Amino acid sequence: MLTLDKVYHAGYVLKNVIRRTDLIHAPKINTESEVYLKTENLQITGSFKVRGAYYKISQLSPEEKEKGVIACSAGNHAQGVALAATANGIKSLICLPDGAPISKVEATKSYGADVCLVKGVYDDAYNMALKLKEEMGYTFIHPFDDENVIAGQGTIGLELLDQLPDVDAVIVPIGGGGLISGVAFALKCLKPEIKVYGVQASGAPSMVASVESGKIECLDSVSTIADGIKVKEPGVNTFEMCQKYVDQIVTVTDDEISSAILTLIEQQKLIAEGAGAVAVAAAMFNKVPIKGKKTVCIVSGGNIDVTILSRVIKRGLLKSGRSDSINIELIDKPGQLKDVSRIIADLGGNVIAIHHERANEGSDIIGCYLRIVLETKDFEHKMAIRNALVAEGFKIVE
Amino acid sequence: MLTLDKVYHAGYVLKNVIRRTDLIHAPKINTESEVYLKTENLQITGSFKVRGAYYKISQLSPEEKEKGVIACSAGNHAQGVALAATANGIKSLICLPDGAPISKVEATKSYGADVCLVKGVYDDAYNMALKLKEEMGYTFIHPFDDENVIAGQGTIGLELLDQLPDVDAVIVPIGGGGLISGVAFALKCLKPEIKVYGVQASGAPSMVASVESGKIECLDSVSTIADGIKVKEPGVNTFEMCQKYVDQIVTVTDDEISSAILTLIEQQKLIAEGAGAVAVAAAMFNKVPIKGKKTVCIVSGGNIDVTILSRVIKRGLLKSGRSDSINIELIDKPGQLKDVSRIIADLGGNVIAIHHERANEGSDIIGCYLRIVLETKDFEHKMAIRNALVAEGFKIVE
Repeated sequence: MLTLDKVYHAGYVLKNVIRRTDLIHAPKINTESEVYLKTENLQITGSFKVRGAYYKISQLSPEEKEKGVIACSAGNHAQGVALAATANGIKSLICLPDGAPISKVEATKSYGADVCLVKGVYDDAYNMALKLKEEMGYTFIHPFDDENVIAGQGTIGLELLDQLPDVDAVIVPIGGGGLISGVAFALKCLKPEIKVYGVQASGAPSMVASVESGKIECLDSVSTIADGIKVKEPGVNTFEMCQKYVDQIVTVTDDEISSAILTLIEQQKLIAEGAGAVAVAAAMFNKVPIKGKKTVCIVSGGNIDVTILSRVIKRGLLKSGRSDSINIELIDKPGQLKDVSRIIADLGGNVIAIHHERANEGSDIIGCYLRIVLETKDFEHKMAIRNALVAEGFKIVE
Repeated sequence: MLTLDKVYHAGYVLKNVIRRTDLIHAPKINTESEVYLKTENLQITGSFKVRGAYYKISQLSPEEKEKGVIACSAGNHAQGVALAATANGIKSLICLPDGAPISKVEATKSYGADVCLVKGVYDDAYNMALKLKEEMGYTFIHPFDDENVIAGQGTIGLELLDQLPDVDAVIVPIGGGGLISGVAFALKCLKPEIKVYGVQASGAPSMVASVESGKIECLDSVSTIADGIKVKEPGVNTFEMCQKYVDQIVTVTDDEISSAILTLIEQQKLIAEGAGAVAVAAAMFNKVPIKGKKTVCIVSGGNIDVTILSRVIKRGLLKSGRSDSINIELIDKPGQLKDVSRIIADLGGNVIAIHHERANEGSDIIGCYLRIVLETKDFEHKMAIRNALVAEGFKIVE
């Protein structure tokens, strides 16, 4: 049974280990609310997960510590467990599916863990972890459904009450539910009138489905760019706590998440991973009733692969009118490319790629297609260039 | 004459206006030094510039305030002046060259300034600002060569001494020299044994040249991705203070700056603009003697255009082996593309673009070129794919 005492104790244990992350005012996230960001993406290891993992490991018995710990994760939990175990002077073994990105494997090793790459997918790695736990006597560190892990995550609730005593609402990402369970418990114990809202990815709404049906639901499949909260089934404890302490749970789409990631970059100079941006997405797209309220969004982590980040930015630029891709059907005669180039250059468009193809099936025998990718200033600029091309007789096709 | 009193006074005036930005430990920037980041990219307006602008404006006489202020900048100084003027309840007019990016114009307007777009380049806008100052009686707010502006920037020195009392060395970006003048003055007054190092872009080394020759040098041309420090000529005051208080000034290349931007994203989850990343670049590439020292890098700003950011990431990925672009000369017969695709897929490469061209001038009449862009895990992975292609008889050309 989780108690407020335990959350305070976790806060005491964590005091000189983790960062008391900054709470940053972010007025442009939602202009009708006073939004603040709890920047757990700037936490050591790049995610809040180290709080729960560290507190859990610190509370093991000497015998348990002697034998070491095991966990199964390709992400933030693995890095949290690895750092926490090393800091406590004990061994850690992390089971990962062998397809896990090298960057994550390396990051986990860099915090001092041994890594066991298991052939197959996550479930295979999980089963291997359980088997090794039995055989070797390791303690298994659950990523969310554990009272001490939840107490560790709850320390965020204590910190933000201290940083913003008159907070009205807190928006929290939900995967397995460990973070929101700890935060909601701490806040509701201390100040029950604070609203706590949960956010899941619309492609992995396991807690939403479970709370709706009143029992734990296991989703057949989950799909979202927010891999940190891509969880099929909530925990027994976290499900109960969400039912009891969380006011409302909403979902956000991958496009909304991408948009939130881009906004955090441009407005706040912060990198968030998909899971780390869902609370901000919920605030931006008015998914929760925060008008006129002092609202904290927990930015839970920042461990996003740069290749994914690069794609998110590209998509964001396209969606906000700052890049365009135009297909033009040309008559195949000299000077056409020159004219197109001139029109674009005169209007200040910056061409970054050109493809010129002759005699496609779809085009006239004497025609050809020109596909131009260019940087534009905004939607207006984009339309000005398109209109100028049409005005000079070029045919734009989609 | 700048006094420490004045810097303290600036700190007092700024206390409830600006953010006391976090000092964040960044152990992976340089493993032989203990590196901390002073995160002025998380300052309001996304840059330290608001400190100097606000203090300067707050100290104007009632008559000066009545008439309003004018500045010339397309960047962080403009936003700082705009916010500071609005917060002091006075008018501000910012002159910009008409080619300035719309995003910067909009940001400046959003802080409450009137914007005057001047046909031409920076110098034209500057001359217009001086003309309007004379005609209208506005006070001109210089971006760096002003005692009160320098005092405002110096508050960063006071903060970081408070946040890390036993700091050994501080690395500071230099454009016109306002930031480093204030910081070095404050630090050397309070604790002269602290080393202060300045960093310029190698494409705009105006302070380096001036200190070397012992008099102010004006560069003919400057070129760097770090537009915030692309300054042709240091100020009279800042030049004198750099000579007196700065231990050493070094330069970093655009590639080193890009690499620092990418490292800040991946390791620290922070967005820095080019100028904001030069101190980190200097630490990463051992440009200054910080081995074994507690070192603070000032990350001075985060206002980078996302299209530039996107290019920096792309270049960083290519340079770190996480993307590859392969040109293969194929014999034009069926099944070739299938074989190439299979080899890449089997090794876990992720194809993101393909161009297939026949009968180039350079290729055999029956040959063709295949250009493949793919995501790879690291250099080893990249070479494994290239080697597998060669082993199956494909000819890779550059």
